[in-house]
Amino acid sequence: MRIKLTIEYDGGGFVGWQRQSLPGANNRSVQGELEGALKRLLGRPVSLAGAGRTDAGVHAVGQAASFEAELGIPVERLAYALNNCLPRDIRVTGLAEAGADFHARFSAKTKEYRYFFLKNGEKPDSFLGQYAWFPPYKLDWKFMQEGAALFIGEHNFRSFCAKSLVVQNYVRVVQEAAVICCQKPDVPRHLQGLAEAGELCAFVVRGNGFIYKMVRLMTGALVRLGAGKLSLADIERGLNRELAQPLAPAAPPHGLYLWRIDY
Amino acid sequence: MRIKLTIEYDGGGFVGWQRQSLPGANNRSVQGELEGALKRLLGRPVSLAGAGRTDAGVHAVGQAASFEAELGIPVERLAYALNNCLPRDIRVTGLAEAGADFHARFSAKTKEYRYFFLKNGEKPDSFLGQYAWFPPYKLDWKFMQEGAALFIGEHNFRSFCAKSLVVQNYVRVVQEAAVICCQKPDVPRHLQGLAEAGELCAFVVRGNGFIYKMVRLMTGALVRLGAGKLSLADIERGLNRELAQPLAPAAPPHGLYLWRIDY
Repeated sequence: MRIKLTIEYDGGGFVGWQRQSLPGANNRSVQGELEGALKRLLGRPVSLAGAGRTDAGVHAVGQAASFEAELGIPVERLAYALNNCLPRDIRVTGLAEAGADFHARFSAKTKEYRYFFLKNGEKPDSFLGQYAWFPPYKLDWKFMQEGAALFIGEHNFRSFCAKSLVVQNYVRVVQEAAVICCQKPDVPRHLQGLAEAGELCAFVVRGNGFIYKMVRLMTGALVRLGAGKLSLADIERGLNRELAQPLAPAAPPHGLYLWRIDY
Repeated sequence: MRIKLTIEYDGGGFVGWQRQSLPGANNRSVQGELEGALKRLLGRPVSLAGAGRTDAGVHAVGQAASFEAELGIPVERLAYALNNCLPRDIRVTGLAEAGADFHARFSAKTKEYRYFFLKNGEKPDSFLGQYAWFPPYKLDWKFMQEGAALFIGEHNFRSFCAKSLVVQNYVRVVQEAAVICCQKPDVPRHLQGLAEAGELCAFVVRGNGFIYKMVRLMTGALVRLGAGKLSLADIERGLNRELAQPLAPAAPPHGLYLWRIDY
């Protein structure tokens, strides 16, 4: 039986999605924790395919994963049982039978990421500062909105991925790219207080695929734009040719959330 | 010059308030981080006295600390400079000159702790589950309110502190003890969304001093009361004589916040 999971996690305590070869408290991965819990429940090893391989410190609200297994318990009860043996920082929010050819990664049509940041240049507090980035600038988010729109469409994103990375094809299609000033429904519950205070913005981006560090490098460039340190022409230049250096350092992982996978 | 600091921190990444003899990423203490930042700013070692020695995983919204130093920079600028070199999970929220005989611990009149928990027995989500306890019971918080009131006054708290602990005197005075269903102003900003949903309760307790694990053992007993597993008479019994066993296991550290110190 093919199963599809939807998963939420706080990335702060993980080395990322991907299982590590060495187990241990300093090597906690989301995949490893989930596979461990499934093995304890089902009595045999399970191999999970995740839709997006989030990096160390990156959060997820709507990660998806799939696996093949013969369940000993009704599918409706598995999510409840899983949540009872998962650690506090991972939660299964959905679990259902999927078609035999479903694969969380290869069947995904688009992925949406949200990068949350403060627009006023101030550390919000010692709790929320770990769940949204506070770059040390006053940011013009409407100008950032203009910059975000430049990413929409099919582009070669070579200038917006880690320099050291070699992949076959740097072309991706971005369907949606916007900078918003967040309202309560736009954010996870722990950020609602910040959103209500009108201090929180997000870069919302949806596309057919993202290369390693791509969203964080796009966000880094947009924040420099909002701080008046880059121009719209700089972003266009990055999209039209391969730059020797990224336009800006990557935004840190703790503001990034894998928001949703569409199939 | 004697300085008083007010400090907020996310306890999740710390071994507790108290400086450890061995430094290192797995030995991060709040006191150690603050003393390190002060030394870098002031150019010489500083010894901080904290009002409450919070345990590993326990948070603080209004911890206080004091130290003696000759400042090279105006006192008004020190908080800003400190926050710029402190990690994301600690923030100085107040800093001012205090009287020469001020000592954050010995001058404290009362301390207030708040223990946040969910009343419906469900894991809230993978973020908030780290900032409030979700005991696996539906809780009658009004009944817990009756239990909390029993703690008010002068009592021997021998049954509500770690069994292994030996202190000179187990008598403490509790001025305030209440279980509340939280409204937005009662909680830190990251818990506001939960409070608005009506799911969050708190045990609010203020007293002249708290013994090691005392608030967590009181909370553990109150939660068992709310779950129908203890009676009001059990709590009274614990306050009137020394029990061989605590009434209930200590509530976990991640729901506990050192809320305020009054001088």
